Amino acid sequence: MSASVARLKHFGWGREGEGLSEDEEAFMLARAEARFGTALTESASAPRLDEIALAAPRIAAPGSLPFCTSGHYDRTAHTYGKSYPELARGLARDYASAPDVVAYPRSESDIAAVLDWAGSADATVTPFGGGSSVAGGVEPRRYGHKGAVTIDLREMGKVKEVDKTSRAALIEGGTYGPALEAQLRPHGLTLRHFPQSFEYSTLGGWIATRGGGHFATLYTHIDDFVESLRTVTPKGVIESRRLPGSGAGPSPDRMMIGSEGILGVITQAWMRLQDRPIYRAGGAVRFNDFFTAARAVRAIAQAGLYPSNCRILDPAEAYNTGAAEGSVAVMVLAFESADHDVEPWMKRARECCADHGGIPEASGVQAHREGAAGVWRNAFIRMPYAMERLILRGVINDTFETAITWERFENFHDAIKNATENAIKEATGRKGEVTCRFTHVYPDGPAPYFTFHALGERGKLGAQWLAIKGAALDAVIENGGTVTHHHAVGRDHRPWYDRQRPPLFAEALRAAKKALDPQGLLNPGVLIDP
Amino acid sequence: MSASVARLKHFGWGREGEGLSEDEEAFMLARAEARFGTALTESASAPRLDEIALAAPRIAAPGSLPFCTSGHYDRTAHTYGKSYPELARGLARDYASAPDVVAYPRSESDIAAVLDWAGSADATVTPFGGGSSVAGGVEPRRYGHKGAVTIDLREMGKVKEVDKTSRAALIEGGTYGPALEAQLRPHGLTLRHFPQSFEYSTLGGWIATRGGGHFATLYTHIDDFVESLRTVTPKGVIESRRLPGSGAGPSPDRMMIGSEGILGVITQAWMRLQDRPIYRAGGAVRFNDFFTAARAVRAIAQAGLYPSNCRILDPAEAYNTGAAEGSVAVMVLAFESADHDVEPWMKRARECCADHGGIPEASGVQAHREGAAGVWRNAFIRMPYAMERLILRGVINDTFETAITWERFENFHDAIKNATENAIKEATGRKGEVTCRFTHVYPDGPAPYFTFHALGERGKLGAQWLAIKGAALDAVIENGGTVTHHHAVGRDHRPWYDRQRPPLFAEALRAAKKALDPQGLLNPGVLIDP
Repeated sequence: MSASVARLKHFGWGREGEGLSEDEEAFMLARAEARFGTALTESASAPRLDEIALAAPRIAAPGSLPFCTSGHYDRTAHTYGKSYPELARGLARDYASAPDVVAYPRSESDIAAVLDWAGSADATVTPFGGGSSVAGGVEPRRYGHKGAVTIDLREMGKVKEVDKTSRAALIEGGTYGPALEAQLRPHGLTLRHFPQSFEYSTLGGWIATRGGGHFATLYTHIDDFVESLRTVTPKGVIESRRLPGSGAGPSPDRMMIGSEGILGVITQAWMRLQDRPIYRAGGAVRFNDFFTAARAVRAIAQAGLYPSNCRILDPAEAYNTGAAEGSVAVMVLAFESADHDVEPWMKRARECCADHGGIPEASGVQAHREGAAGVWRNAFIRMPYAMERLILRGVINDTFETAITWERFENFHDAIKNATENAIKEATGRKGEVTCRFTHVYPDGPAPYFTFHALGERGKLGAQWLAIKGAALDAVIENGGTVTHHHAVGRDHRPWYDRQRPPLFAEALRAAKKALDPQGLLNPGVLIDP
Repeated sequence: MSASVARLKHFGWGREGEGLSEDEEAFMLARAEARFGTALTESASAPRLDEIALAAPRIAAPGSLPFCTSGHYDRTAHTYGKSYPELARGLARDYASAPDVVAYPRSESDIAAVLDWAGSADATVTPFGGGSSVAGGVEPRRYGHKGAVTIDLREMGKVKEVDKTSRAALIEGGTYGPALEAQLRPHGLTLRHFPQSFEYSTLGGWIATRGGGHFATLYTHIDDFVESLRTVTPKGVIESRRLPGSGAGPSPDRMMIGSEGILGVITQAWMRLQDRPIYRAGGAVRFNDFFTAARAVRAIAQAGLYPSNCRILDPAEAYNTGAAEGSVAVMVLAFESADHDVEPWMKRARECCADHGGIPEASGVQAHREGAAGVWRNAFIRMPYAMERLILRGVINDTFETAITWERFENFHDAIKNATENAIKEATGRKGEVTCRFTHVYPDGPAPYFTFHALGERGKLGAQWLAIKGAALDAVIENGGTVTHHHAVGRDHRPWYDRQRPPLFAEALRAAKKALDPQGLLNPGVLIDP
């Protein structure tokens, strides 16, 4: 990272100095007060850095690793990701799991040296990209080991090589979204992977967590863009060949993609790129209700049109983000191409919408920046900043995302929504709100994304959150969904992942991990028990 | 399999009673004689079943497994797949590696019972679909174990459930291509996975080998159609959830896809289907030369048009199959949809061709059945029958397929072609022929498919084949390609796969196998050493 960029906050979303504007906060607060029918006053304050007491480091890096530090900011800022229970613990000034040492390696050999030293010092190792995990994926846990080291990849942020002919680039794992796109722009190319965390997450993190990006169809996960990978494990480097496709045994890359730091540190990848789009068509379409909109989405997803965007918001979510007045569901639909006019594609998608009573917004509106789609897009990007402000007033809000096949979707949706609403009432004694949208869609089913809002009680926020989220995930698992579509498993989702993941696959994964990380130091407790 | 279908040949391609017509054989022979500049006379005969002597079985199945047999036909017909060196050994009446027992289980519990018994009898286990492996994937090898059992899945050939809403079906692993499509047709659905071996291969085999299918772009491998899998391992059943997409850890399915029988027996899968296409556009396009055609393919592949077919033949391959007169390269281009007119897609693809001087065939010709595309298609399907006839005259012919990124393609092509041509001259003392086509294409590179023809010497055919194929694969590996794009690794490709596959991935895979198959009985020597 360039030194001109502010450092990441030790509490809350983004970098120091960033947050909601007064207007944005007033809007969020008004919506929250209306929702809970009560004034919400601040009953806590965000922890200042000097308020946080850390235990003395249990281990210290040797002088041969000058890129390591046990500085107060570094240890504090690497204690948590961005999940709600982590925020609640931060609010309680609980930073007990801070790493002893934070390493900022500049090269693979630096990483190998840290892994060697950690092995000899009996320290666990947590790879850290931008720290934007919302699943408890970066908190160091020792599991009986002596110390904890976090490896922050931020110094490995270069696009090392660009191949315009094949439209691919070799990119270091620690490259943040904006830096990645800035380095590709002069070549007329783009990775076009824009998760909500884009500014505060890295290529290696996206790959390790199977992150979901901008494309609502076809190339939904980062997985699809990986051409080859290079990973440093405690046993050495694994590097796959750069290939457009292969059928040579189980894919080595697919073992690393989604491994969430338990097998190694992803240092670089050849990534498939896109030409920057020139042709665009799109807009928002309104539907009577969410299920009707979902049927239109299914028609589009099964038509083989591959829109770049095809997301729907239920009426409450459309209202909460300001995209509609609360009585209609909204579809955000877009096609784009660097090669050809996409109007024939858009025309057919519009017909699919009309078949289900969809009414387009006035067509002069430019899809991405204005109208309902633009309003929603802006709210979507600013949303994470709200959590750290509202928690000071006792609000619990969080999201979870899943996927399910179409024939089960409607019952699934209702079961999840009801279970979550009931859990909110039970955990907090007060009605809350659960809304839903689709973030990605497939010919065989959607990826529904749920948001919930509850009013909790200071000192109990973490436990109340767990009661709500646990009930929601119970329903997800019991009704056949996946515990996560693109937020990853981390430690927050482990109990439900354990119910989803075939037990014998866990055995195989544990054996594979043992072969690469015999001491079990890498991110213990994530995905599988040590 | 229904009893009305003839049984598979014990030597050669397909079922008993099938083969080239006299006209087809005369055409192939004339081309071969012209190629080698000499008359080719038969110097050997295909082995009759009663000419093949098998050693007495080393083990016998217990009476509790009545679906097992040690019959002469069964053991003989399960000795080999369809690779050239296997054919050469069959020609020499060498069936020494015949399995002791062939099992035809009717259920998962039958399979589990076979695995249990094999474990107690110290017998290796080879899963067998249609036996069409061209990579040495189904020959039983004992690696020091006492006996060898082959599990033929042909009795497990049902489509068990169809979900029209999500366009998916639950299909048993032993379902052959034609039976699979016949069971889907009444629902208006199709898997549309048509490998060259379609009639003689099964769903489980396609998944175990990462088979390549009909679609030249986008959905190139069977991998993309797998929604969930059920596999019986010696330690029990692994079943993944039916999900349209997931980000929950490394994909369990991706460990099984391409595992080539070393981890378990794939018993059923939920597969993503297509509506049967109604709209079609396509045709053949002629280009001055292969590389120019390849540049047009690249333009189409990077345009985001996703044609169902976009294959090119070099001039020699177009000549050999009768698709053109030998001076031009031919592209076979097609779009199809069940939803919408594909003319806008085809129009843009035609422009990409015109940009590279491509000249379409007369447009009245219906793309798939007539014209150059139709001629080639027919030759493509009949080709495998030629090998068993020409080998009787000493001809060595085989194919291999790979993939490479675009920026390396032209040099790669020349290096492979030269190395193979030189190896033919060196191994046989006579000029042969090497041709190339693309079978599948990606935005970042093509999958080139090479065919070679050499005139060998009776008694030396296997060794000469190995010298040629080995030199070809040396060049593939040295120049950065993959040892296989969709033919699988088997035992034929192992030495080169070992050079391609990251060594630490082999360690991880070996550990995973040990967790699922502690005795190391499943297909030993395939992918990794026992």
